[in-house]
Amino acid sequence: MAHLQSMGDQIVCTYLGAEATAPGSYQTVELNIADLNRCVTALSEVRPEAIINLAGIAFAPDTDRDFNLALNVNVGGVYNLCKAIEELKLKTKLVTVSSSEVYGRIGAQDLPVTEDCPVKPYNNYGLSKYLSEMTVRRFERVEAVIVRAFNHIGPGQRSDFVVSNFARQLAAIAAGKAAPVMKVGNLDVGRDFTDVRDIVRGYRLAAVRGAGIYNFCSGKSVAVKDILAQLIAISGLKIDVQIDPARVRPAEIPVLYGSFAKAQRELDWTPEYTDLRTTLNDVYQYWRAIESSA
Amino acid sequence: MAHLQSMGDQIVCTYLGAEATAPGSYQTVELNIADLNRCVTALSEVRPEAIINLAGIAFAPDTDRDFNLALNVNVGGVYNLCKAIEELKLKTKLVTVSSSEVYGRIGAQDLPVTEDCPVKPYNNYGLSKYLSEMTVRRFERVEAVIVRAFNHIGPGQRSDFVVSNFARQLAAIAAGKAAPVMKVGNLDVGRDFTDVRDIVRGYRLAAVRGAGIYNFCSGKSVAVKDILAQLIAISGLKIDVQIDPARVRPAEIPVLYGSFAKAQRELDWTPEYTDLRTTLNDVYQYWRAIESSA
Repeated sequence: MAHLQSMGDQIVCTYLGAEATAPGSYQTVELNIADLNRCVTALSEVRPEAIINLAGIAFAPDTDRDFNLALNVNVGGVYNLCKAIEELKLKTKLVTVSSSEVYGRIGAQDLPVTEDCPVKPYNNYGLSKYLSEMTVRRFERVEAVIVRAFNHIGPGQRSDFVVSNFARQLAAIAAGKAAPVMKVGNLDVGRDFTDVRDIVRGYRLAAVRGAGIYNFCSGKSVAVKDILAQLIAISGLKIDVQIDPARVRPAEIPVLYGSFAKAQRELDWTPEYTDLRTTLNDVYQYWRAIESSA
Repeated sequence: MAHLQSMGDQIVCTYLGAEATAPGSYQTVELNIADLNRCVTALSEVRPEAIINLAGIAFAPDTDRDFNLALNVNVGGVYNLCKAIEELKLKTKLVTVSSSEVYGRIGAQDLPVTEDCPVKPYNNYGLSKYLSEMTVRRFERVEAVIVRAFNHIGPGQRSDFVVSNFARQLAAIAAGKAAPVMKVGNLDVGRDFTDVRDIVRGYRLAAVRGAGIYNFCSGKSVAVKDILAQLIAISGLKIDVQIDPARVRPAEIPVLYGSFAKAQRELDWTPEYTDLRTTLNDVYQYWRAIESSA
């Protein structure tokens, strides 16, 4: 939001349930994208130049618990936006956020993953995102961009995502609210982490000049255990790390990282937060402020 | 059903709402495949060797009116069957019925369409069927066959499908219930029509020995106007044919026909009802019996 405002954009932010609370001055509209009529009404009022669609069931275990909900929001929601744009004959550019999870079972020979790599989603989350991509592509008259975002991290992320989770546990320990013991899941997997501020900058570039599908990623793999070690070092704490079987997700891909060559070529996008430690420190300080004040 | 019984199969037929009324003796189970818990319960009781999944929103305009319903039934239903098979650790082979509509915008250079042809669904029905295919493929442990059925026709088909519609209108005229005027939609499109009795025979072969994706089709295109002319000739009536704009569906592909070479090679399936006039006569006599008795 801060980035869009710094670029002089006029922002309308939709929310569902509790109103959006990000700082800054912008218009807000309540919108359930699973409701086609509400989408048509909202778009006929706002008539946006571009939509950056981040609405969705974004936490993978939620799509396992209720795949029907994932269908209605992640797939049906994108359908409703496209249908509303088409019905209203708008020129709105749609940037919709997909995921590296659409690639599914990637072997070492496919690394780094490019946008041409055959997709083979193997979990509900990746499947729902791939179905949303196919849904966008059914609308020939809607100008759309699909961003396949790899893992992104930053201050403000929900603490059920892994890096936020680690940082929050450490912040709670630092605040004296918990014993110096951390429960963690799979530490051996390698993932491609990008600072969310780079990702957001990319969404805007995609809206301005994108066409087709783009990976947004750092281009390298970092082991989850190295992230944990860096966060512990940032905290300055002595920690007993314990594997919690309930947090170990099944069917993980050992290593996944992408190529952002296409985004660089067509959007002139490259990650600027290239020092992971800076991002991890920002995440830790974010949770430190929350945990020490609460 | 008659074919499966003639092969000695033990049949369990599911229905939703009104109980299935096809003749013969077989077990029936009420099942809404959009309900995962009900699918798990039904499959744990029946433990079938194979499922032939025909449940779905099959009439294209219904998927335009309510795409969310198409998602929940055509996509969510297939998800629920796969999920139930996986959870119950069954060996059930799943034959699920997709559609030639997944191919979408086919150019003359792609004819006859084979299973390798890139898909590009352009309407809600074709999209929902393609999403169901992707959903089946997410379940690596479920042995599944996808049948891309081209247009099929035969006695018993709902009269909102084109051939049944023509035959029913003619039968009503023959019974003296309507003036000799027919309202029709696009007559110039060419489609690939197969007798439903051939299709059903193919479903069983797919369950017994299929793997992957198969086109079920006649391999040739017939213009809808030729079907109308043949049905009028069969009826022996003199008819005033009128184009009804409300029946003309948008965005039609002019000509579509498929190749059944893969089904022939791997399933030993070829259409046996190769004389279209026989099928059309059966359809007409079916509606004649209904319209003259009602």
